[in-house]
Amino acid sequence: MATTPLAKMIYRFGEGKADGSIKLKKLLGGKGAGLAEMTNLGIPVPPGFTITTEVCRFYFQNKKYPAGLEREIDEALAWLEKVTGKKFGDKENPLLVSVRSGAAVSMPGMMDTILNLGLTEETLVGLAEKSNNPRFAWDAYRRLIQMFGNVVDGIEHKKFEHILEEVKEAKGVKEDTELDVEDLKEIVRRYKELYKIEKKEGFPDEARQQLNKAIEAVFKSWSNPRAVTYRKINRIDENEVFGTAVNVQAMVFGNMGEDCGTGVAFTRNPSTGEKVPYGEYLPNAQGEDVVAGIRTPMHLDELKQQHPDVYRQLTDVFEKLEKHFRDMQDLEFTVEHGKLYLLQTRTGKRTAAAAVKIAVDMTKEGLIDEKEALLRVDPEQINQLLHPTLDGEKKKEFAVIAKGLPASPGAVWGEVVFSAEEAVEAAEENRKVILVRTETSPEDIAGMNAAEGILTARGGMTSHAAVVARGMGKCCVVGCEEIAVSEKGGFFQVGDRKISRGEVITLDGSTGEVFLGKVPTVAPSLSGDFATLMSWADKYRRLGVRTNADTPKDAQIARDLGAEGIGLCRTEHMFFEEDRIFAVRQMILAENKEQRQQALAKIFPMQKEDFKQLFEIMKGLPVKIRLLDPPLHEFLPKKEEDFVALAEEMGVSPERVKRKAEELFEFNPMMGHRGCRLGITFPEIYQMQVRAIIEAACELKKEKGMTVEPEIMIPLVGHINELKKVKEFLLPVIEEAMEKQGVKVKFQLGTMIEVPRAAVTAGEIAKEAEFFSFGTNDLTQMTFGFSRDDSGKFIKVYLEEKILPADPFRSIDEGGVGKLMEWTVKEGKKSNPQLEIGICGEQGGDPQTIYFCHRAGLDYVSCSPYRVPVARLAAAQAAIQEE
Amino acid sequence: MATTPLAKMIYRFGEGKADGSIKLKKLLGGKGAGLAEMTNLGIPVPPGFTITTEVCRFYFQNKKYPAGLEREIDEALAWLEKVTGKKFGDKENPLLVSVRSGAAVSMPGMMDTILNLGLTEETLVGLAEKSNNPRFAWDAYRRLIQMFGNVVDGIEHKKFEHILEEVKEAKGVKEDTELDVEDLKEIVRRYKELYKIEKKEGFPDEARQQLNKAIEAVFKSWSNPRAVTYRKINRIDENEVFGTAVNVQAMVFGNMGEDCGTGVAFTRNPSTGEKVPYGEYLPNAQGEDVVAGIRTPMHLDELKQQHPDVYRQLTDVFEKLEKHFRDMQDLEFTVEHGKLYLLQTRTGKRTAAAAVKIAVDMTKEGLIDEKEALLRVDPEQINQLLHPTLDGEKKKEFAVIAKGLPASPGAVWGEVVFSAEEAVEAAEENRKVILVRTETSPEDIAGMNAAEGILTARGGMTSHAAVVARGMGKCCVVGCEEIAVSEKGGFFQVGDRKISRGEVITLDGSTGEVFLGKVPTVAPSLSGDFATLMSWADKYRRLGVRTNADTPKDAQIARDLGAEGIGLCRTEHMFFEEDRIFAVRQMILAENKEQRQQALAKIFPMQKEDFKQLFEIMKGLPVKIRLLDPPLHEFLPKKEEDFVALAEEMGVSPERVKRKAEELFEFNPMMGHRGCRLGITFPEIYQMQVRAIIEAACELKKEKGMTVEPEIMIPLVGHINELKKVKEFLLPVIEEAMEKQGVKVKFQLGTMIEVPRAAVTAGEIAKEAEFFSFGTNDLTQMTFGFSRDDSGKFIKVYLEEKILPADPFRSIDEGGVGKLMEWTVKEGKKSNPQLEIGICGEQGGDPQTIYFCHRAGLDYVSCSPYRVPVARLAAAQAAIQEE
Repeated sequence: MATTPLAKMIYRFGEGKADGSIKLKKLLGGKGAGLAEMTNLGIPVPPGFTITTEVCRFYFQNKKYPAGLEREIDEALAWLEKVTGKKFGDKENPLLVSVRSGAAVSMPGMMDTILNLGLTEETLVGLAEKSNNPRFAWDAYRRLIQMFGNVVDGIEHKKFEHILEEVKEAKGVKEDTELDVEDLKEIVRRYKELYKIEKKEGFPDEARQQLNKAIEAVFKSWSNPRAVTYRKINRIDENEVFGTAVNVQAMVFGNMGEDCGTGVAFTRNPSTGEKVPYGEYLPNAQGEDVVAGIRTPMHLDELKQQHPDVYRQLTDVFEKLEKHFRDMQDLEFTVEHGKLYLLQTRTGKRTAAAAVKIAVDMTKEGLIDEKEALLRVDPEQINQLLHPTLDGEKKKEFAVIAKGLPASPGAVWGEVVFSAEEAVEAAEENRKVILVRTETSPEDIAGMNAAEGILTARGGMTSHAAVVARGMGKCCVVGCEEIAVSEKGGFFQVGDRKISRGEVITLDGSTGEVFLGKVPTVAPSLSGDFATLMSWADKYRRLGVRTNADTPKDAQIARDLGAEGIGLCRTEHMFFEEDRIFAVRQMILAENKEQRQQALAKIFPMQKEDFKQLFEIMKGLPVKIRLLDPPLHEFLPKKEEDFVALAEEMGVSPERVKRKAEELFEFNPMMGHRGCRLGITFPEIYQMQVRAIIEAACELKKEKGMTVEPEIMIPLVGHINELKKVKEFLLPVIEEAMEKQGVKVKFQLGTMIEVPRAAVTAGEIAKEAEFFSFGTNDLTQMTFGFSRDDSGKFIKVYLEEKILPADPFRSIDEGGVGKLMEWTVKEGKKSNPQLEIGICGEQGGDPQTIYFCHRAGLDYVSCSPYRVPVARLAAAQAAIQEE
Repeated sequence: MATTPLAKMIYRFGEGKADGSIKLKKLLGGKGAGLAEMTNLGIPVPPGFTITTEVCRFYFQNKKYPAGLEREIDEALAWLEKVTGKKFGDKENPLLVSVRSGAAVSMPGMMDTILNLGLTEETLVGLAEKSNNPRFAWDAYRRLIQMFGNVVDGIEHKKFEHILEEVKEAKGVKEDTELDVEDLKEIVRRYKELYKIEKKEGFPDEARQQLNKAIEAVFKSWSNPRAVTYRKINRIDENEVFGTAVNVQAMVFGNMGEDCGTGVAFTRNPSTGEKVPYGEYLPNAQGEDVVAGIRTPMHLDELKQQHPDVYRQLTDVFEKLEKHFRDMQDLEFTVEHGKLYLLQTRTGKRTAAAAVKIAVDMTKEGLIDEKEALLRVDPEQINQLLHPTLDGEKKKEFAVIAKGLPASPGAVWGEVVFSAEEAVEAAEENRKVILVRTETSPEDIAGMNAAEGILTARGGMTSHAAVVARGMGKCCVVGCEEIAVSEKGGFFQVGDRKISRGEVITLDGSTGEVFLGKVPTVAPSLSGDFATLMSWADKYRRLGVRTNADTPKDAQIARDLGAEGIGLCRTEHMFFEEDRIFAVRQMILAENKEQRQQALAKIFPMQKEDFKQLFEIMKGLPVKIRLLDPPLHEFLPKKEEDFVALAEEMGVSPERVKRKAEELFEFNPMMGHRGCRLGITFPEIYQMQVRAIIEAACELKKEKGMTVEPEIMIPLVGHINELKKVKEFLLPVIEEAMEKQGVKVKFQLGTMIEVPRAAVTAGEIAKEAEFFSFGTNDLTQMTFGFSRDDSGKFIKVYLEEKILPADPFRSIDEGGVGKLMEWTVKEGKKSNPQLEIGICGEQGGDPQTIYFCHRAGLDYVSCSPYRVPVARLAAAQAAIQEE
């Protein structure tokens, strides 16, 4: 631990120049660096100084200040006195300061601001005289005691408010502004009394003492529980950005009259991105009044009319700042007697739509180039543009009753239902419903499709509900552990509240929030700017972007959103369609190969049609079709009564159906009889599928002259011999199919890489495969030994405790799973240089993962249709960042 | 494919020298190479020649013989005629030959032998005259037609037998020997009639035609279904040893009178290993008579008395062969007019006991050295010595009703029961029972312990039943898929047969066979030779050998069998003991940390006692204790009625118990909330266990002055941060425990490597661990994505189809899992040179795996108690083979 004195502990800003700059953000915090930068730009900023984050870190490591800090503060104060021409603690011409915290990243929960520091019973007199406004001075003093008492000494805010209210009541007034000097003196007296009772000692009525206590309070606020929690939730790494800086700045007053005021502003509209000044201004007020919302502030266009001079000063600053920072800024300012002072500038937060518009506009304005524009937009945000979102203002009026994982974006409301059948019925009656279940299973697909959105109590980001919903582009919240679903009872419980069938809830699939009632939503709209940005993205990216799509509808959406092919078509989803599940079950219940083949023969023409449709939509773009993957028991009914129904339908005994289900039962189905293991034990299933694929391609060639080159993907290969075996019984079928059709088509045959053993032996497997596609859901499950359906229980704790930096089912675990992927790419391409390598796991639509895939040398990523634009942008960013 | 003529297609032997030798076993087959070697040794062998396996391979690849083969056969025949002074097909002095197949590995199912080849209606006359024995000549002719017809032309054996029986019946005799020349002529006539009917063309009555057809039949027999099946079952790799050789050898006759005969012999007793000639001799008979068992043969000591000269010739050969081959030989011989001829020699198969005795004796005799003695004994066989085995003779009388996987060796019989309770009751009444279940769960442990053996319909070599049974040293057959168990009905079904509660079955845990009835068993006995061999093993091995033991009983057995410590003590097994499961369930049902700690406080003193006992037995040897691993739901009851009972016992509502069970339910428990994930979410569990471990060591130090250095093993670590976290909350507890006890003990803290991610990141993890122990059950499960409980369904097919060379749960998959292990050792030791690395998965007791662990640089292996001697021997072999 460093106990040696620090090199430079305090950075000054004022008189048009500053020791620091925006580059020292880590050292000076965002606020301090912004103040320094503005000062250097010649923008009016009240002078002051910043005590560095290094001092804070030293303080925490050594439980004391570094040597010499006191002296440096003295010197800085002396300088500030000189610059302002006032004296700190002076009774005639007192210097007042604000003290603000400011870490490298914005962090609510830390101490924020104390104003008017340096006011004492003595200096108060000076201020009253100097300002010629005793009421102002006493009000400032009252505010100081209240803020200081609350923020530094932890006296509850409401206790001060209580006194204030009592005095107002006694006087029979409503507004603070109606109080006169005597009232304020009375309040100060009673505040001080309160102080004595609460803190044993009185309010520190000595300027330097106030400052010292305030500085220490800022430092300490770094580790207060709210700040710690905030960092935990937002996964802010303390090794990266430790500590907060302290900004001590000369006060300017927005509450000294009608030619004063305070406000916040954005250089452009943060909601739409339009290039118009945007913000609020409160005349004759101090900063805290804006926050407290006691009066309604005016919009900037009002300011323009009422104080055109102030408005001009402000727009001048806007221009200067945008030109300098080359980005939209978010400002705090104060006007003292008609003169503008900037108190803060930072990059402004914005909606997705605004982000896109601003990036494109600024490029056109020449402020940034295309590459920078691409880097400016958060790919994750793009997602919002494609789905309805909750009306940000109106949602505040609704109660958030629970929060789960944001599994699939969008915002929807509907009546609560608890079964797929109810959902389907409701949809037929044009009622909007939310399907609420403990978890979903493949049997629920029709219901999920019929519902507006899905809410589950169990499961992670890649649980059945999550994966299927994303595939459908349907809003979904999963793993909402707080709710207990009684499907039979027709209600769900959350805490003491019981929400019954028919009640309306709203889901926010981007935050995981569940609201009671119908929250208004805002429809998505894709602007021309969006198309422009995407075209730039396509220009710079190296990675291909494909989609995971199983239905013509999904394929069409993905095409429209720019997908360059299908990276994963899961044939099992086709098996669940109502018109074929019966034949699928017949196949499962078959006693022998012949019976099985009979059942498969019924499915064959339907599968062929499926593939023809997909091929047509994709118009010659690559289509990778994965042969049947899930264990057969997934296709059997789950409930007692369904067994009976199925048995009746099939004309067999319920016992036989149940016995079959028992036979197929698996303790760990994820590692059971599925994927190519199924194909090898029942070759006729894969043979039927491959025949359907090849004949579909042949027929399109004959009928429409289309060139389709289907790509057949074998799932769950872990050993080269599995792939060899599968090829052994598929290649003759392919030949046969082409012979039957009388035309030849090209095709490819490759494998998923989803079992760790496949990655370990990638060099061998590459010799038999034309392509690899990383199935990172399974690869992550098996590399970690985390069942994606069960891991919610501990992954949450792991993220909170920072055992894992991120949910590995959301972003690739680069240190583990990623190592296997890198190895696979290296060994695979070494042994087969023509090998094409992609990813089709859920992480394929995650920006962090896309950056990784780019670096690891993959050829393309494949993701759900609605994430295609996200992937295009992220892929471009990866390429640009690499340069 | 090679279509060029082969270099040398035929190897001759005769007149005291041979073209080949034993070194050409692959080329000449075992039989041909043995004949060549014996010829070179000057041992009397009828002359002949061997057509190589290369010719066979050529024949299969090209569907024809290599060019020049015919000519070479002609030349070889001419040479044979010269050597024997007879002529093939000659009517006056006919040369007769035998034709025998012989691959590099012995392979029942291929064509074996045709004798008397070259006899025709013409040459028959010459043989009759020359031998002065027309009956002998006609009998030889009859035999030829019968053998040739059956073996070459596929005419059913029973059709010939039927004719033979009819003629005997007509004459009113019982024995073949009672038939005279005329009878035999009649038989020959009818045999030829049969031949015509069956084969359209008649019996080939031309010597050279007979030979050609016989040679082709031998080649073809390589690919007959029985041979193919045999190779499949025994996993003989056709790329390694393709094809059979053909041995054409001049006939000698054991059936020409009382000074003739035929026999089989071993140079030592293959059952006990004693150095006494052992075998059977049938006077006046041809080889096939011995096999047919029509007369009872005499033992060699009878031969010694009746034909001392022949006996002397035989023992001379014994001595010569043993001196030469330096191993026990298995011979076939024929005596023609008092002169001995050897027809075959090969290394003799032997029992485990014999293997040990012969290896030790031969070392003492100076034939081999200690190292060779160690290599001579199959470690897997050693296992037999430690368990009762079925009486090899008597078991033939019983029906094998089913066959499962040989999960845990031994041979036991008992009444069938279907529940743990029944088993416990029966044991209390001193009845021997076999517990038969679809599968077992931890709740069955008491029942498994009470039963003689366990039979399950489901599960693989590392299923619950298998692992627990091996731990208990209890006979167990698992994955017996043919049986359908009705636990409620109180019976199991196998095919049409129903075996009900109370019926007696016998299990052979070394073969997986299930017999109906009580098959007599043979008790194990450990000889002094065994101890000698083990002491030699300890001298040469480098790997340490420890044991997986959870109970004092197991630990004691393992110590007695030479274990050098405990490599894995599974603490969860302690949790199931009857007196503590209640407290364990209380802990699980706890609503909060306090309640959980209260329940843990009850378990604490029992755990401490457990550890004290183990430490005492192990007397300072290392003891690795794995903290709680399985998911908590394993400890809850499984059945409805048990929930009610538990709820009552605990004074809570059954709903609450059920709700908890539902909460804990997991889709894939193997990858769920278990191992250190459990420890991290409920630190108090691990803290209790570690406190018990450390206090146990401290108390032994204080009470008995023992030095115990406990080793604490964290399961299921996949990320370095997990290990860090666990250490963070365990180390203070360890300090506390020592402080409380007032003494200090050394301890180690390390981790299992069982999640692929742990292997991938071994270099990182090694920095925080003092040891690694490969948990290869889980590592194999996750690397392959094979659930050990479910994979039986397809692994069987994979082995048959040679997709996998061996069951990866039995022997380490060197190409995949092994690669991860090698990486782990390399990276682990690089980042922490002091790191100790062992294996404690089930494969740790498998010889192939032990060889691999030696090569991979592990420090020790740990296996179930009864496999400790196996491991000691295999470890020695690994070290010796490396030299």
